[in-house]
Amino acid sequence: MRALVYHGPGNKAWEDVPDPVLRDATDAIIGVTTTTICGTDLHILKGDVPEVADGRILGHEAVGIVEAVGDAVTTLRPGDRVLVSCISACGRCRYCREGRYGQCLGGGGWILGHLIDGTQAEYVRVPFADTSTYKLPASVSDEQAVMLADILPTSYEVGVLNGAVRPADVVAIVGAGPIGLAATLTARLYSPRHVVVIDTADSRLEMAKQFGADEVINPTTHDVEARIRALTDGLGADVAIEAVGLPETFELCTRLIRPCGRVANIGVHGKPAMLALDKLWAADVTITTGLVDTFSTPTLLQMVASGQLSTAAFATHHFALADMEQAYATFADAATTQALKVVLSK
Amino acid sequence: MRALVYHGPGNKAWEDVPDPVLRDATDAIIGVTTTTICGTDLHILKGDVPEVADGRILGHEAVGIVEAVGDAVTTLRPGDRVLVSCISACGRCRYCREGRYGQCLGGGGWILGHLIDGTQAEYVRVPFADTSTYKLPASVSDEQAVMLADILPTSYEVGVLNGAVRPADVVAIVGAGPIGLAATLTARLYSPRHVVVIDTADSRLEMAKQFGADEVINPTTHDVEARIRALTDGLGADVAIEAVGLPETFELCTRLIRPCGRVANIGVHGKPAMLALDKLWAADVTITTGLVDTFSTPTLLQMVASGQLSTAAFATHHFALADMEQAYATFADAATTQALKVVLSK
Amino acid sequence: MRALVYHGPGNKAWEDVPDPVLRDATDAIIGVTTTTICGTDLHILKGDVPEVADGRILGHEAVGIVEAVGDAVTTLRPGDRVLVSCISACGRCRYCREGRYGQCLGGGGWILGHLIDGTQAEYVRVPFADTSTYKLPASVSDEQAVMLADILPTSYEVGVLNGAVRPADVVAIVGAGPIGLAATLTARLYSPRHVVVIDTADSRLEMAKQFGADEVINPTTHDVEARIRALTDGLGADVAIEAVGLPETFELCTRLIRPCGRVANIGVHGKPAMLALDKLWAADVTITTGLVDTFSTPTLLQMVASGQLSTAAFATHHFALADMEQAYATFADAATTQALKVVLSK
Amino acid sequence: MRALVYHGPGNKAWEDVPDPVLRDATDAIIGVTTTTICGTDLHILKGDVPEVADGRILGHEAVGIVEAVGDAVTTLRPGDRVLVSCISACGRCRYCREGRYGQCLGGGGWILGHLIDGTQAEYVRVPFADTSTYKLPASVSDEQAVMLADILPTSYEVGVLNGAVRPADVVAIVGAGPIGLAATLTARLYSPRHVVVIDTADSRLEMAKQFGADEVINPTTHDVEARIRALTDGLGADVAIEAVGLPETFELCTRLIRPCGRVANIGVHGKPAMLALDKLWAADVTITTGLVDTFSTPTLLQMVASGQLSTAAFATHHFALADMEQAYATFADAATTQALKVVLSK
Repeated sequence: MRALVYHGPGNKAWEDVPDPVLRDATDAIIGVTTTTICGTDLHILKGDVPEVADGRILGHEAVGIVEAVGDAVTTLRPGDRVLVSCISACGRCRYCREGRYGQCLGGGGWILGHLIDGTQAEYVRVPFADTSTYKLPASVSDEQAVMLADILPTSYEVGVLNGAVRPADVVAIVGAGPIGLAATLTARLYSPRHVVVIDTADSRLEMAKQFGADEVINPTTHDVEARIRALTDGLGADVAIEAVGLPETFELCTRLIRPCGRVANIGVHGKPAMLALDKLWAADVTITTGLVDTFSTPTLLQMVASGQLSTAAFATHHFALADMEQAYATFADAATTQALKVVLSK
Repeated sequence: MRALVYHGPGNKAWEDVPDPVLRDATDAIIGVTTTTICGTDLHILKGDVPEVADGRILGHEAVGIVEAVGDAVTTLRPGDRVLVSCISACGRCRYCREGRYGQCLGGGGWILGHLIDGTQAEYVRVPFADTSTYKLPASVSDEQAVMLADILPTSYEVGVLNGAVRPADVVAIVGAGPIGLAATLTARLYSPRHVVVIDTADSRLEMAKQFGADEVINPTTHDVEARIRALTDGLGADVAIEAVGLPETFELCTRLIRPCGRVANIGVHGKPAMLALDKLWAADVTITTGLVDTFSTPTLLQMVASGQLSTAAFATHHFALADMEQAYATFADAATTQALKVVLSK
Repeated sequence: MRALVYHGPGNKAWEDVPDPVLRDATDAIIGVTTTTICGTDLHILKGDVPEVADGRILGHEAVGIVEAVGDAVTTLRPGDRVLVSCISACGRCRYCREGRYGQCLGGGGWILGHLIDGTQAEYVRVPFADTSTYKLPASVSDEQAVMLADILPTSYEVGVLNGAVRPADVVAIVGAGPIGLAATLTARLYSPRHVVVIDTADSRLEMAKQFGADEVINPTTHDVEARIRALTDGLGADVAIEAVGLPETFELCTRLIRPCGRVANIGVHGKPAMLALDKLWAADVTITTGLVDTFSTPTLLQMVASGQLSTAAFATHHFALADMEQAYATFADAATTQALKVVLSK
Repeated sequence: MRALVYHGPGNKAWEDVPDPVLRDATDAIIGVTTTTICGTDLHILKGDVPEVADGRILGHEAVGIVEAVGDAVTTLRPGDRVLVSCISACGRCRYCREGRYGQCLGGGGWILGHLIDGTQAEYVRVPFADTSTYKLPASVSDEQAVMLADILPTSYEVGVLNGAVRPADVVAIVGAGPIGLAATLTARLYSPRHVVVIDTADSRLEMAKQFGADEVINPTTHDVEARIRALTDGLGADVAIEAVGLPETFELCTRLIRPCGRVANIGVHGKPAMLALDKLWAADVTITTGLVDTFSTPTLLQMVASGQLSTAAFATHHFALADMEQAYATFADAATTQALKVVLSK
């Protein structure tokens, strides 16, 4: 088959590789019909994720058709159409028993396109298939479903649920990339009073309005802290969601929240940040971090199926699977192309 | 009357001052029968709390007898014996309505011995007396009750409850001063499996054993992280409680916890700390800060009355009220005197 | 002044009575500009609430202007425009400290128009005024605000929050009177997937659609249980809200919910119901009851002010305050008049 | 092999049956080393559980040694010593993903000794073995571990956790059979102030004291409601746990609790009860039911291993496995024999 193979920092190719085969009784082989590219894939290509080995097929998001299942797979059959989640779950370890699949101790967690071959390929072997895939109703399209592989559960669980957004809240979301926009969309499920999205790119801020931001602020030209205080009787935001991954954006979040507020970090960080405990020690703040667990995937899937959540605006560009390298180029140059998610289909 | 008056950094005196009088309809005047000294009072004397003005009577912990009440006070009468809490609560603002009295917006919060005259005196004016004092049953002595003015609710709310200690947890408590020891005592209420107390002073670690530590570690001679990992299948502590207030002790806490664990900061910090988001962003950790709200004071009082909580070991030294300066000297030199709490009685 | 006075079962009159005066330091006298009538007032008139004495002024919902305040009132001044809540809160007792004002032990709870004179009058004395009224922004009209005196917080707290409605839930609401309709409206704040309203009156079901019901069912002609099972893969509703107050409607709720579901009772019951523990003991169900606490009133008020909650459709009829008896007649004959809430204005 | 086989109401025999064999890839065959008898087994023998077919091997609690595992079993190997839980979990369905294994939709739940052959035998086939058994440390004996197969997690999850016992609570436990006594023991983990156990058998009340009851009451000679009110300033218990399964004991629980209290039903009921909604509708009570999920089994196992929980007092009688019928006779006549749990060992 053909697949997007990583060959060390800066190098990748859409090339011929052997078809995957069943290895464990809990495996399934999935024929990929739709996949996409994540910001994390770009990090891997920069060499930021050293545990990814030369020769690895990248990708951790897909929709596909079950081709074959191991003896232990009880809920899937060949021909089933499924979502392949970015998180695999052994379903047996302590963390999986608590629904914290992202922390799986039994061989799961984020493994696809990371520790084992991934989804940017014609076929993919998915371990623990019963607990790592989701059967799709006919009413949900591939393009809708692939947004549930990573960005929607990540922004919802790690941003909105960890941040405990509640009705009437003022929510500040720092970062208007795909994750920040998905947080904007899913925060709405809890009826906040005012969602403010903050980003340095005006084009992204325009998109944030489409995803439900009540207000957008470019911090290079406006005083974010003053504006949030003005909205909140001087107290600060109820919830601040970090969706960038830089020390300064995290630190901004901690300055934006009110006493008893919550900072939910979603961003992938490469450096430590400063935590102003001299200012925060008495402020009753809660700060959370997290990798997506995907426990919310069935819930989000129901809401996409019922029309409560519209994922349409994420899919800015479409490619054939074979045009993978062109898709990477488009996604990597988002500043020019305005790409959010590129959708690759068979 | 006589009171301990602050006269700028390094200066204080037990001196004559005018008796306090009722000012607002919600005030009470309390005749102090027992008071104590807090580590925060030492910070004030060092000049670390600049909003404390020259001439201020210090102290925010007391037991006493109601002398007089304003017209609006409905639950207290002269002669009632009450606990004066470190936190005053207007009972009307948004935060008070949510039980977050420490963040009171209506003139309360930590004001005694800080923004208004405090309890290290023969008499004290207590604002919002209905919602800032607690009537004491005869079965609870002054000495028992004064431990409920600050250290027990602080360690319980900001450490144990924010940390969400649960049965079978491994809990690491960093710092074995009065607050850390009170956290050790109150963490026991949730039946943790193993409480490890960490401090650089061996004498304090000995005390920690009396307060219920299963194990104590001196990090100057032992590898704390390795020991916690050994206790927890390599994962880390379920809960880490910071009870020192230094960047390095906070940072230690963030290294000690397991994925999905909680760091509860109680320490009063004068400097920012580093938050290793590069290591923690995917670890599902929760970090909390907080000023005590004293919502738990009635619960703790019941448990002292029923004998479930013993406060006896905190009271290491006893003085007459008039020996206030000597009591300060003893408390300030805890390394020599082994003082935890000094009890001053009329 | 003029007021609606109860004179024993079946008897009431809009008559001259003495003006109320300040009695306690925490009182306020409010000049009523808008009031309304509650189903509970009709119960009182039937003699169902025997603790209401002959001579009592009825009514527990109002908007008005502060005329005078007692010495202890700190947050209100004459001229302030306020919402008078159905629940008065002493703000000092154990339950008030936990935000459970409906259970106030200090002289509050539901007292207006019940144990003391109420709001269907030109003036009303409101005890504990600081903690029992809410200042209104100019952007919220009297008519909007009066819906926050009882029905909105009652349906939201006792129905939606006790029922713990969550995104993607299927919610069954039994009863389409004002409370059931307010539950329909406020359940939407948590983005349920499908809200089904059940009532025997088709006219009320029509109204339910306007308040946001996705589907309505008349159980006299349709099989409610079969329909709910069909919507939920045979499992049952996630949440069932009882908004009638009869044994059979409560019992229906317990048959409609899925394993691990929640039944939230709002209805005022005059008789016991059967609880089918033989069927429910292993079903992991949670059943809640409750009197409104009004802790959510500030939140709901913000959402009315921001336009997130529209209360317009509740106000079906308008009267002058002096036409109180006619308003009662209209409200009591809701089957004919289709009255939901009648609004009486000065 | 030999096993205890059910032959319709009133009939059972310890007889020869075929050895169980692996059927599904997720199965394990366990050689039983220790088992016990549950009150539910007596219900089955009375014919109260009609879905149990003639020929069924009874029993849903065991400790044993893994003999063989199916291809899909990844965490067990022959020779492993394991606890067999009363609840089997497919680990894949909606309820299992939420840790609600008792409600498993994928073929698990309570199936052993109910819908498939059980543990009162020399060998037992355990489906979904990875998620339905727990490996035992050498420090936990068979007799200790078998108490974790049902009564400890049942009383802890359905009684103590559903009841949300908190420090300083007054807890009323109605019923001093094995489940009520296990609730008494495990309620202690949350440091209640006063645990009152209520039963009509004085001998059981004596045992309750050993399990940690602060006070015991026989309702045939004492006024339970008056006593609970006296203990609680007239308010009622914070938590009432029903551990009998009769309408009158459930109804007693609803009379014993305070406003905002919780009734946690553990009892297996054969008839509906009356729910006094006319008294409870405004009382903010929460009533829960539940089948054990066993999500707490790993936690409880840690506490048995660490010595925090002592199960010794439950094992009142010991038998060889082959003396199964004698063990049944002893257990069924608990009024005479004072049996709590009978332990049968190979």
